[in-house]
Amino acid sequence: MSKRNIRVTDPVWKNYKELVRKEMIPYQWAVLNDSIDIAIERERNDDSIPNEKSHAIENLKIAAGLKKGEHYGWVFQDSDVYKWLEAVAYSLLDTWDDSLKDLADEVVELISKAQEPDGYINTFFTISGPERRYMRLAESHELYCMGHLLEALVAYNMATGSSLAMEIAAKLADHLCDTFGPEEGKYHFADGHEEIEIGLMKLYHLKGDNRYRDLAEYFLKVRADSPKEWKRLKAEDKGGDILGGISSEPSKYNQTHLPVEKQDTAEGHAVRVVYMCSAMADVAEASGNKDFAAACRKIWRNIVDKRMYITGGIGSTVLGESFTLDYDLPNDTMYCETCASIGLIFFAKQMLKLDRNGEYADVMERALYNTALSGMALDGKHFFYVNPLEVVPQKGKLDPTKSHVKSVRPEWLGCACCPPNLARLITSVEDYIYSVFDDAIFVNLFIASELEPDENGKKVFIKQKTDYPKSGKVLFEIDNKEEKETTIAIRLPGWTDDAKMSLDGTAYKPTLKDGYMYVPVSSGEHTIDFEIEIKPKRWYANLDVSEDIHKVAVARGPQVYCVEEKDNGSGLHRLLLNKESRLVDHYEEDLLGGVCVVEGDGERCTDSSDSESIGGLYTDRKEYKKETVKIRFIPYNTWGNRGENEMRVWLSEE
Amino acid sequence: MSKRNIRVTDPVWKNYKELVRKEMIPYQWAVLNDSIDIAIERERNDDSIPNEKSHAIENLKIAAGLKKGEHYGWVFQDSDVYKWLEAVAYSLLDTWDDSLKDLADEVVELISKAQEPDGYINTFFTISGPERRYMRLAESHELYCMGHLLEALVAYNMATGSSLAMEIAAKLADHLCDTFGPEEGKYHFADGHEEIEIGLMKLYHLKGDNRYRDLAEYFLKVRADSPKEWKRLKAEDKGGDILGGISSEPSKYNQTHLPVEKQDTAEGHAVRVVYMCSAMADVAEASGNKDFAAACRKIWRNIVDKRMYITGGIGSTVLGESFTLDYDLPNDTMYCETCASIGLIFFAKQMLKLDRNGEYADVMERALYNTALSGMALDGKHFFYVNPLEVVPQKGKLDPTKSHVKSVRPEWLGCACCPPNLARLITSVEDYIYSVFDDAIFVNLFIASELEPDENGKKVFIKQKTDYPKSGKVLFEIDNKEEKETTIAIRLPGWTDDAKMSLDGTAYKPTLKDGYMYVPVSSGEHTIDFEIEIKPKRWYANLDVSEDIHKVAVARGPQVYCVEEKDNGSGLHRLLLNKESRLVDHYEEDLLGGVCVVEGDGERCTDSSDSESIGGLYTDRKEYKKETVKIRFIPYNTWGNRGENEMRVWLSEE
Repeated sequence: MSKRNIRVTDPVWKNYKELVRKEMIPYQWAVLNDSIDIAIERERNDDSIPNEKSHAIENLKIAAGLKKGEHYGWVFQDSDVYKWLEAVAYSLLDTWDDSLKDLADEVVELISKAQEPDGYINTFFTISGPERRYMRLAESHELYCMGHLLEALVAYNMATGSSLAMEIAAKLADHLCDTFGPEEGKYHFADGHEEIEIGLMKLYHLKGDNRYRDLAEYFLKVRADSPKEWKRLKAEDKGGDILGGISSEPSKYNQTHLPVEKQDTAEGHAVRVVYMCSAMADVAEASGNKDFAAACRKIWRNIVDKRMYITGGIGSTVLGESFTLDYDLPNDTMYCETCASIGLIFFAKQMLKLDRNGEYADVMERALYNTALSGMALDGKHFFYVNPLEVVPQKGKLDPTKSHVKSVRPEWLGCACCPPNLARLITSVEDYIYSVFDDAIFVNLFIASELEPDENGKKVFIKQKTDYPKSGKVLFEIDNKEEKETTIAIRLPGWTDDAKMSLDGTAYKPTLKDGYMYVPVSSGEHTIDFEIEIKPKRWYANLDVSEDIHKVAVARGPQVYCVEEKDNGSGLHRLLLNKESRLVDHYEEDLLGGVCVVEGDGERCTDSSDSESIGGLYTDRKEYKKETVKIRFIPYNTWGNRGENEMRVWLSEE
Repeated sequence: MSKRNIRVTDPVWKNYKELVRKEMIPYQWAVLNDSIDIAIERERNDDSIPNEKSHAIENLKIAAGLKKGEHYGWVFQDSDVYKWLEAVAYSLLDTWDDSLKDLADEVVELISKAQEPDGYINTFFTISGPERRYMRLAESHELYCMGHLLEALVAYNMATGSSLAMEIAAKLADHLCDTFGPEEGKYHFADGHEEIEIGLMKLYHLKGDNRYRDLAEYFLKVRADSPKEWKRLKAEDKGGDILGGISSEPSKYNQTHLPVEKQDTAEGHAVRVVYMCSAMADVAEASGNKDFAAACRKIWRNIVDKRMYITGGIGSTVLGESFTLDYDLPNDTMYCETCASIGLIFFAKQMLKLDRNGEYADVMERALYNTALSGMALDGKHFFYVNPLEVVPQKGKLDPTKSHVKSVRPEWLGCACCPPNLARLITSVEDYIYSVFDDAIFVNLFIASELEPDENGKKVFIKQKTDYPKSGKVLFEIDNKEEKETTIAIRLPGWTDDAKMSLDGTAYKPTLKDGYMYVPVSSGEHTIDFEIEIKPKRWYANLDVSEDIHKVAVARGPQVYCVEEKDNGSGLHRLLLNKESRLVDHYEEDLLGGVCVVEGDGERCTDSSDSESIGGLYTDRKEYKKETVKIRFIPYNTWGNRGENEMRVWLSEE
């Protein structure tokens, strides 16, 4: 079994990891086995969402011939198991656990039995229509599931050395190489939902087999040509629709409207876009495909400059879970799926391999600390699919346009993509802290941790000591065992105004380039004291964002803040934050697991004492009063943990 | 043939009526016959909306056995023809036209042939499933269509004396009395969409047959009991869904969640609610049903105090075209269907028979001058289904959540309920001007017109001379040929600050009660000079309307105003109306058919000259500039007549 070359020591992150290990993983296992009595909520008003049970393990058992029965759930239900397995793998890398490993081995065994002799695996088709294999790839998610399986198997092999995992992966990947590709006689189309490309690239990075990289590249290149092939095979298919709604979506929905390398805006289903870009950037770096790299940079710019919420959320509409248009960022009807922000983190991580620019890490951190962590309750057992910036609970219940906007995290979701996605992200957060290159080590995230060199890597040991983002102080203890100087490039977050640094106890002014401060360190032991100013700050949106004009958001370091009814009473839209008031923060140990609270002076608009003058719906006399209030903000990612209540990120400013 | 006892002389309204007579009626006739090459738009992204053709006349011909073929279009397609016929009837009352009368006679003839021997009529069921009659009344709109037919036949009989129209109506109504009712052996349920109750009441008012009134009352009383009967018959029905979506709607959608007399909030499909209330108020007045009257008053209060847009639009969401919750009035995703405001006008008119309160007429006027008239382009040949308060054209195109929000009126709509509804409203606008009681004549609307007594009515002649709402001056020339004093009760609009009155040339201070000024006039000729102050005014929404807080709307008399991109440039959300600036109005003869334009001083927020400081999506420096601008407002009902552009009713206020 393998071992990570980096270990998180930060108590907050260790706590998240323990929550995943002790709560989420067993809880999700029980859900996947239908052995726990919970309420599975539909993520929105839609009768077609299956929510009676998960049935995911049962599906695998039926496909494996171990049980009799019908497939239940989404056509992509298998992926829930695969993401669980991937999270288990990362968790084992953190904390070894024999019984968990035995359980996971059984799952791998089950998967191997469900795999067909030629390498194909998908419980829906194996159980319900083997003859329909790949006939409905616009909607069937077959390669999507296989991509998640490859990710899981690679992780599990790294964690445990499982050879069975590698056998399944190789058999599956070889099946794909035999079935898809530019050669005559093979299929010339991709999956409607990108993901196989990521899985293949992970296998490529582990095994170094160029066929996997080339197939990933092929799937991306052939993407825009896929719809006509999908249509051709669908016409031959004798079965009914599998995910009916998808066929009426426009081509932008699944990024087939243009060749991927010609795309320069983020269009369609948000998770698909960032999964596609994540793979495209990875392929670009691995194969030198400059067109892919250029497209990734353009799509990135479009997202970050015009289509991303301040919380790192993406996807402005529930319909198609999609991007819409530039500067269209409604706060109360948006989607901001947890998975989409996780995908944005993947995308950012890949871009950091292409370009040494701290903005990628800024966005990665924004998505991680806000929308991703918001996806999970503090108990690790309740999850948001949608992460709104403005919630009035009654509107989600009584306005069907907002049925997807929940004010309390459900126990589980009909489409359960987000919870296991979050589990695998949290258990692998160390993979995002550094980008290690031959000439320099880039510090992307400030998380207390210990980096040891890979077997083949640079012999540089880094201990990062910090309680960030509680404070902005970070101490790097570096032991450069190389015989030559190396460079530590420390991110200067785009959101900070001020930073100080000393090298070996002496003030040091590093070269700053594209958001990184370059610090050369000679052989031997060194310390870098680094301090970013972290204080509550006001943020404003671009004037083209009509929903946020005349409004202000508060952030403290990487964390966006919000107001909740619990602290500020109902009718949060009536609050006005005073423009000149100082925002003050203090740490509250017992609140929401320990958070820095921010307070500011403001006012609340209330009805005039002369109720007649404001009675009814419209008045020609604007006679409301303002009462002075202290407005209390909490970190956005902790909202909704104290029962159902109103929440709001953007406040009116006086 | 009959004759109206009131004639509109106002040139603006005469122009509207001529537009209906010369443009809308022939145009709609061509559409109903599929003899004109136009683009029929779906009212929103929904593939199930039939939009290839109307086929409505063809359906009648097929049902009548005159042609072979299949039914096409909505199950309620017949109602388009009936509403057209009703508009023709009212138009003939205005302006006799032999050829139009001949054409309408042919339609009545065609309808009589499509009617089944027992009185039943519905082309969908006659053509596609006679054995399914009334088996799917939750969704089938059979009684809904029959209600529209009764309205049309009553109107046509009044206009032309057509005895065939009365024969069809009597045969149909008798069929209904035989089929539905409390007696054993009859059906004990209503239609999912209220309307038959209105039709039956119109026939009752014409013929005085209590059976029709009683059946209308029965349909209302049995409403909440209908779902279980619908379900029972649906289970017996061997055909498929007719309007599939409806079966998954909650019971509030069709007002079956509570007995109608227990309902005190406006719930569900907005058109249904106001049609139901319109009938319920009519029945209450005719039969003395106090529970019905009380429920109407409560639902009215809920709509007017908590669920109505300033434009008189109702229905806050496209999903179910429904009411949502109190104070939930989003300006850019709302529905505000033209038909719903027309229905609100019907409801108000009926309430004026129950209670002598000017508020009903205030709301009637608000809905009429704003959302109803906004439903039609100035050319009479393009129509809005949805009447938004805030439009950015690209959002309607690229955000599927707003696909129903169109910025240019389509030539026709897949669901064509609104255009003919508007035609019948405009051609009968005189019916809304006065409420005549034994003891007093109530003036509800200020429209230049001449009232002559009915054969059996009060012998009081009133000439109303005004150019309202261009000015607020109204001269009433009254000839009281009764031998005793009578009372003229003139509405003092709720939105005005000031009014002056003189009676026979002498200043007069009338008794003011519930929004009416009571003026006793003795026998003989009199003049009342009445002047309401009409000037541009600022309006504010109740603080509970989160979407409108810190915003202002401008109205001038009964007309709500809006800003358009055409006059004010793009990015209307960047405009700020100065709180202290004087709003100035002037008439522009050549603009939009002649309108009063309002102008006010304001500012436009623009990016700072230092573009770096505001570049990207979020900034910690609020450094935008404000440039002084003159903001130009036009009446809301004329928006969207100068090509595709942004529009906005609620503006930020500085």
